[in-house]
Amino acid sequence: MKASQFLVSTLKEAPADAEVASHQLMMRAGMIKKLGAGIYTWMPMGLRVLRKIEGIVREEMNRAGAVELLMPVIQPAEYWQETGRYQSMGPELLRIKDRHDRDFIVQPTSEEVVTDIARQELRSYKQLPRNLYHIQTKFRDERRPRFGVMRSREFIMKDAYSFDRDVTSAKASYQVMAKAYRAIFDRFGLRYRAVAADSGAIGGDLSEEFQVIAATGEDAIVYCPNSDYAANMEKAEALAPSKPRGAATLALTKTATPGKSTCADVAQLLNVPLQSTVKSLVLATDETNERGEIVKTQVWLLLLRGDHDMNEIKAGKVPGLDVGFRFATVAEVIDHFGTKPGYLGPINTSRPVKIVADREVAVMSDWICGANEADFHMTGVNWGRDLPEPDVIADLRNVVEGDPSPDGKGTLAIERGIEVGHVFYLGTKYSKPMQATFLDETGKPQLMEMGCYGIGITRLPAAAIEQNHDERGIIWPDAIAPFGVVVCPIGMDRSAEVKAAAQKLHDELEAAGVDVILDDRGERPGAMFADWELVGVPHRVVISDRGLKEGQLEYQHRRDAAATKVAAAEVFGFVKARLQA
Amino acid sequence: MKASQFLVSTLKEAPADAEVASHQLMMRAGMIKKLGAGIYTWMPMGLRVLRKIEGIVREEMNRAGAVELLMPVIQPAEYWQETGRYQSMGPELLRIKDRHDRDFIVQPTSEEVVTDIARQELRSYKQLPRNLYHIQTKFRDERRPRFGVMRSREFIMKDAYSFDRDVTSAKASYQVMAKAYRAIFDRFGLRYRAVAADSGAIGGDLSEEFQVIAATGEDAIVYCPNSDYAANMEKAEALAPSKPRGAATLALTKTATPGKSTCADVAQLLNVPLQSTVKSLVLATDETNERGEIVKTQVWLLLLRGDHDMNEIKAGKVPGLDVGFRFATVAEVIDHFGTKPGYLGPINTSRPVKIVADREVAVMSDWICGANEADFHMTGVNWGRDLPEPDVIADLRNVVEGDPSPDGKGTLAIERGIEVGHVFYLGTKYSKPMQATFLDETGKPQLMEMGCYGIGITRLPAAAIEQNHDERGIIWPDAIAPFGVVVCPIGMDRSAEVKAAAQKLHDELEAAGVDVILDDRGERPGAMFADWELVGVPHRVVISDRGLKEGQLEYQHRRDAAATKVAAAEVFGFVKARLQA
Repeated sequence: MKASQFLVSTLKEAPADAEVASHQLMMRAGMIKKLGAGIYTWMPMGLRVLRKIEGIVREEMNRAGAVELLMPVIQPAEYWQETGRYQSMGPELLRIKDRHDRDFIVQPTSEEVVTDIARQELRSYKQLPRNLYHIQTKFRDERRPRFGVMRSREFIMKDAYSFDRDVTSAKASYQVMAKAYRAIFDRFGLRYRAVAADSGAIGGDLSEEFQVIAATGEDAIVYCPNSDYAANMEKAEALAPSKPRGAATLALTKTATPGKSTCADVAQLLNVPLQSTVKSLVLATDETNERGEIVKTQVWLLLLRGDHDMNEIKAGKVPGLDVGFRFATVAEVIDHFGTKPGYLGPINTSRPVKIVADREVAVMSDWICGANEADFHMTGVNWGRDLPEPDVIADLRNVVEGDPSPDGKGTLAIERGIEVGHVFYLGTKYSKPMQATFLDETGKPQLMEMGCYGIGITRLPAAAIEQNHDERGIIWPDAIAPFGVVVCPIGMDRSAEVKAAAQKLHDELEAAGVDVILDDRGERPGAMFADWELVGVPHRVVISDRGLKEGQLEYQHRRDAAATKVAAAEVFGFVKARLQA
Repeated sequence: MKASQFLVSTLKEAPADAEVASHQLMMRAGMIKKLGAGIYTWMPMGLRVLRKIEGIVREEMNRAGAVELLMPVIQPAEYWQETGRYQSMGPELLRIKDRHDRDFIVQPTSEEVVTDIARQELRSYKQLPRNLYHIQTKFRDERRPRFGVMRSREFIMKDAYSFDRDVTSAKASYQVMAKAYRAIFDRFGLRYRAVAADSGAIGGDLSEEFQVIAATGEDAIVYCPNSDYAANMEKAEALAPSKPRGAATLALTKTATPGKSTCADVAQLLNVPLQSTVKSLVLATDETNERGEIVKTQVWLLLLRGDHDMNEIKAGKVPGLDVGFRFATVAEVIDHFGTKPGYLGPINTSRPVKIVADREVAVMSDWICGANEADFHMTGVNWGRDLPEPDVIADLRNVVEGDPSPDGKGTLAIERGIEVGHVFYLGTKYSKPMQATFLDETGKPQLMEMGCYGIGITRLPAAAIEQNHDERGIIWPDAIAPFGVVVCPIGMDRSAEVKAAAQKLHDELEAAGVDVILDDRGERPGAMFADWELVGVPHRVVISDRGLKEGQLEYQHRRDAAATKVAAAEVFGFVKARLQA
């Protein structure tokens, strides 16, 4: 490819609304172009990256036995009504009326349509297992689209769906995909982690996110540096402390803490470590009758150590809270504790509440909590002596660096990541409402067990850039670079030798199947180098008159601090060897 | 590929709503699946055809110097308001409101968006010419979607747009595309014609349709068997007759023709050839004031030979009619001719009308037309003697078989076709309202000259099938077949030799880059053969125990009446040679 026949379009400055590095660099490198809020054109340079990503995904999906099809972007609402998602999804589901006033949606995913195909096509146990996937445009009407293609409204996703005859087979299909995803992400050449994720109401451990590691990532990834353990923050378990509860050494004392309503303030005032304090969070669950009216409300007090944060997913799994909880209203708090939030605690509540203690709080002694009276805290609090043992002890908190790893192989570390893939066991969540059944050996209809497997195709370039860039621009891994090699001739117009050498190298590399671009635009060296460093082509060869006179060209990897001189005769082999590395 | 790992899904009967052969066969062969009216899933078998078509289109577009990008499916209305198409397009333009009540459309094409990109990116004459294309999902909310993917609502189109500095350069860019399209259609392996088409208001001859020949095609294609001349019916010129007008031999006579209001009925009654009659068509043009009120109406009488049909495009080019015409109302007809339609003619009109005679009518003598009195015609009519020469003589009619070819190289023939491609010179139709300008050498802004070039990717398989099928199913050309070769082992379960031979041939062909499918489903021979004949795989190899004992396999092309025995050792080379043919 010659640059003059391509569309190289770089910008010195990123637009003002580009907040993150990947968005800024993709705009500056001419990879994407904004058409509207959260809607982007993939410019030629960016599309080359997308196609390589799609190619890798397709190859590995096919290798894993998945079969590609293409489901429509615009789907009749009736399928979405069958599963109830037409009603339950919020405005992020883009709804359309056609000329006959019939309801349609623009697909955000395709569970309904693929399940409809399965219930028609997969009639017998002999046709299972089966995995169907497509790589297709999707739309999610985000309230606040941002970060470029990282959180856009129109996007491309690879979504695969597996259909199995039973749970055992479904788990095997899940594992095939989990393995294929590792192969895919390995090929991308990005640092990533497959992290255990919460599988929601379905239960089990069959949910993993594929996170591209990046300091700017939205998600916290918990991992053990000594083992394979990795989970997202929702999922990572905080083990019960192995040390027993300490003996009580202090007397229960009501202590004045005027104006100090946070654990941090109280700890500072009393000159104790934050770890001695306990924070109180008040939740409520409602019981409703068949008309949906609330007939009974239960108030819950969750206790966490002052330096810990509540994990809502974990709280939502506590028996009794798993029906769906909400934060209590101020009126409910006053009614049950006799005071406003800020000075709450489990001792002397005005009305009975259920006490749920985090595992860590359950082993604390001589702790501090609110006194249920404004401007006062209780100090020297001890379980058993000052209040009954908690109603429930549970893992309620986010893990922190240094917590023991759940696999017992060391302590946990935390880094940040960008979710670009997810494998998930669905069970019969969709097959049940849509009655997707097959006939088993006895001719009896059985519900299919499903799994779903997504990769954010258009999000991936942004994640790759968040991980791989410097002050000069993007640094692509070879596998997904728009071009693997750029040949930069200096003074091509003045020197026939330079022109011929550049063309020869370009042609040789192209004939060898290398994605090479020859910059024949006639730019000056500084501007030319800046463009390709911004675009992030990993391998560069510079050809100059002076170099040729010495029989040498200059090679530089995008990550190299300086160029390496390479004998002109050897440059083809040299570059090929670097590409294969 | 093994059939057991693919999704082979054939039907004995086509659904009732499948009217045409391609729709029936695509449904029966499991190529597509209906999701809603005019909305189809491309099933794995069909998607393989699409991907091959896309691959050929992409290769040839790139070879021709076009650059691929990807414009969004959902586009903000504001761009469409700039060109006025948001207002002027009917309900086939699918309009959407997002969660913030802002207006969007689902793209039916992308002129607006690509012109917006061009006006931002192509600033200088140095960046021109440029051709940008994408292969993307589109939507046209057809009132009555039908014929499967031939006239669906959601479809995939390759649309390319060229940008040039002036008309000369734009014409050169057009020719590059016209040539690339020939290369593309040649590679598809379909019989097609590139036919000249009307270029509408823009004028010039830069509009060609690429029509796949099929007896069931919606379009009539006019061509000269002795030359390259080909045009669609709107465009094909009916030359002025070379013979002079004959002398008058009959007297003008008012003849009773009770109840005979058509030319055919009159010719039969009077026992004269239909070619002696002249039909009268009454049109009207309105002159409006600045408030859009009609201030003046002109009535026109168009005269065509009784056996000829009016061509509205040609009529619309007659000076005076080119402002836009309509058919006259019955009231206007009575007002101007003194009688109702059925007995109209140019003689003795009650009020003056403009007479436009088709070229053929202008040289007629002793002809027959209505007498402007119910149940009477005039016979023996002659120009000059009985009525003045016509106000205008023009080509008003559709050509018919046997008309002289406009290039003077023989006579015209007519066949039917399905339009799957169109190359079109746009001029400044979009660049003008959107102010897409570049700076010329003198630094002056100039409007870009544009062209647009479409290929109906999802329509093409249907067109290919309309052209290539028989009572057993589809017959794909090699280049776009879902699989090039099917290996059918008979009794694979019983015979280890058959299984091994089938697997070996499959593996050899696959290793050689052939798209081969091994039918390992264990179907009985009849059902297996019927499936692959329905799907239309062009090359089949049957492996049986009996054959192997004789050292022979059976090869049969989908068009062959019978199988050919091939020595087992030679079958790989034999099949490869057939594929290359």
